[in-house]
Formats: sequence, structure tokens, C-alpha cells
Amino acid sequence: MEANFKHVSFEEMSGIDEDYDKECKYQVSQLIELEGFSAAQALYYHNLETNPDVKEPKVLVIVGPGINGGDALVAARHLKFFGYDITIFYPKRPKKEMLENLTLQCENISIPFIESLPEEFGSDSYDFILDGIFGFTFKGEIRSPFKEIIDQIGASGIKIVSVDVPSSWQCDEGNVNSTYTPDILISLTAPKKCSEGFSGVHYIAGRFTPKFIVDKYGLSVPPYEGCNQFGKIN
Amino acid sequence: MEANFKHVSFEEMSGIDEDYDKECKYQVSQLIELEGFSAAQALYYHNLETNPDVKEPKVLVIVGPGINGGDALVAARHLKFFGYDITIFYPKRPKKEMLENLTLQCENISIPFIESLPEEFGSDSYDFILDGIFGFTFKGEIRSPFKEIIDQIGASGIKIVSVDVPSSWQCDEGNVNSTYTPDILISLTAPKKCSEGFSGVHYIAGRFTPKFIVDKYGLSVPPYEGCNQFGKIN
Repeated sequence: MEANFKHVSFEEMSGIDEDYDKECKYQVSQLIELEGFSAAQALYYHNLETNPDVKEPKVLVIVGPGINGGDALVAARHLKFFGYDITIFYPKRPKKEMLENLTLQCENISIPFIESLPEEFGSDSYDFILDGIFGFTFKGEIRSPFKEIIDQIGASGIKIVSVDVPSSWQCDEGNVNSTYTPDILISLTAPKKCSEGFSGVHYIAGRFTPKFIVDKYGLSVPPYEGCNQFGKIN
Repeated sequence: MEANFKHVSFEEMSGIDEDYDKECKYQVSQLIELEGFSAAQALYYHNLETNPDVKEPKVLVIVGPGINGGDALVAARHLKFFGYDITIFYPKRPKKEMLENLTLQCENISIPFIESLPEEFGSDSYDFILDGIFGFTFKGEIRSPFKEIIDQIGASGIKIVSVDVPSSWQCDEGNVNSTYTPDILISLTAPKKCSEGFSGVHYIAGRFTPKFIVDKYGLSVPPYEGCNQFGKIN
């Protein structure tokens, strides 16, 4: 399905975000809650399908400094409520009220925060890494400490689940920094141009896009099942 | 399970709401989104279990002037995205930004708003009424037009699904106004004292209560299945 799916450019996705704000009056805290929940639900079903014996997967959630990090904090909280064994690594914490609130909500439910990646960091360390470092707006060079973190997770052998875009990829140009390719990609609202050739497992999260936005940008609608908040396209 | 479940008083529920705000820093737009989604999901599964042949149930969502109405607007939007045939009746619309935004989000996805209940209003009109008129803070007399609306829905023979508490019931005292008893109750966070003797179908919606709040108020935890946001207790 990936090949026939509409992949949006940076400009189109920026336009959609503006329409969510101006035309839909979606509040950031509302939208981020829906996005993070959708991502958590996609991972939950993915694990159920691929590792049904692992009831409490160990997931390391890596949180970047922006909105993509906020999505990851929301997903971490919901996964914890689903019974997952969650750890958060959040190396750069901006002083932004919304992100501080989302952090508190994770601390409040006893999710441990680690200060660095474990010294012995390999495929046995976690069942999944949920990568919420950078989103579709990332451009330019990867600065420290994220350069080292991205290299380490890429080399770890742990299954990587990227939220929205693989961190360090550019929305239109793709993996220009020659970093890792995730096993699983959970695109928010629509797949981005960078994932056109992606051959891993691909979910679209976000069953909240009104038809007028679907029509305006010519989006493809994922095959949503039941009341699921995600659809699988690859 | 109802009989063994902790039912909270008005004072306890007010304390929980204060803790959601002060201790969890849950934003109203975030919490209402979670509550409304949970209620929509509970109704979705309820219909799947009881009316599996009705794929696109007709639901009249009645929206009151406060936060309970906000929950109902969120539930209406999600149910529409699930493919339901939704109509909204929202007779008194306060000029509050959050409620106006939630209203716009329903208008944006072509949910029709009606100005009065249909003249021929009986058990064939809708599969369900989602009652989001009043929540657990309701006290005193039922004013017009809600008095007439509540009488009409009670007499309609349509299955009524109440969000949080049956509208016009008082949290601690119950059905003091001798109005209707719903078929299905979707309590938010915890069942209220008024539902202690309730014998209908009862869901608890809201898988977002941290353990410290569960412990502080001695709450019972519903049997959440999978990644469902609701648990069935009756």
C-alpha cells in the first residue's frame, strides 16, 4: 500500500498543521494527546501481532526537545497504563510548560527516567526503542548529544519504532545524514516524502483528520479497523 | 462487580478533579479529550457486543451547557470518525472558547446539529441517545429546556447512554427528581454514589488515573482489557 499512498512534503505537512490550528482549533495539548495515544495503540497492536508472548514489553522511550518529544511522552504514559515496562531517556528538557506537564504525568505513574543510555546497550536491553527525538521539521546537522544517541540506537540491534519520521531524516530529502532506518514507522496524520521507499512496518496514527483536509491535500486514508486510532499501510 | 466497587461522593470526586489539575497538571482540553474518547470507545464496544449487525448506529448526542457537554462533543466527534451516524442537539451554547472549539470540530466533519427534538420521537428514531446534559456537579431543580428534554428522552423508548451520571441525578442523592434511568452508564474515572443500586450496563471510562490517586481515594480499578480505555463493571 505504501507505493500508492500519498506522501506529503514539508510544505504540505506545515499547511496541515496550520489548518489543525486555525481551521479546526485543535489545541496543542489535545492534538498531542491524540497523536501520542494513537502511537501507543499502534505499538500495542504491533506487539500483540508479532510478540504475543511478551505481555509487558520493555520499551525505552527517547524524548527529544520539541513536539515530537511531547508525542513520545504521551505515548509513554499510555503504554505504561497498558501494562508496559517503560523507561524514559530525556536528555534535553526545554522549560516549556506543556512539556513539563507531560513529564510530570509520566513521573506521577512511576516511569523511571535514566540520565544516559546503559553501558551495555544491545538487543537484550529492550524489546523496543520508541524514537521521539526529532519530527518532520528537523533540518541541518545533528547536534550532540543526539548525534551520539542516534548512532548508538542504530547500532544497538534493538527494534526501533520511530514516531512521525526517523529522527535525523529530513522530511523531503530522507536519510541525508546516513543514520539508521527504523523497523517500524508510525507516521502522524500522513506519511512524509522521506518514507516513500520505506520497506519496514508502517502505521499511520491519527484518526482525527477532517475530510476537508483530506480533500485539500489529496491525502490517502489508512484502513482504520474498528475504533482503532491507527491504520497499517505496510 | 457494581456492589463491590467503590462509589465516590461529590466531595471525593471534586478532590480527584482538583488533583488532576494541581497534582497531574492535566489540561482541561487534554482530560476532556481522554474522557470523551473513552466514552466513545465504550459505546463502540457495547454496540459491537449487543447489536453486531448495526454497523453505523444512529446516535443522538444531547449536549448540555457545561463540561459534561464538552465530553459529549468529544465523544460525538470520535464516534463520527468510527463511522457512526451522529446527530447533535445542543440547545444552550455558552460562549466558552473550549466548547466553541469542540463544536467547530464537530461541524467540520459534517455532523448535523438539530434545533429541537424531532416531532415523532420514539424508539425508531435513533439506536442510542448519548446523554451529556449534566454531570456529577448537577444540583437543584432542572430548568427549561432541559426539564422537557429529559422528560422526552425518558419517554422515548430509545436506549439512553449517560455520560458520567444520568442527567438530573445528584451525585450523592441519586434520582431525586424522579426522572429516567439510563440503560447504559459510562462513569468517568469512578462510579458516583448515585449509581450504587444501578442495575444497567455500567462502564468506567478513563484509563488515566495515576495509582497515587487510586490509593488516596481507595478507588476500585476496572478490569481494563488490552489497550481499551474503559472497563465494564456491570
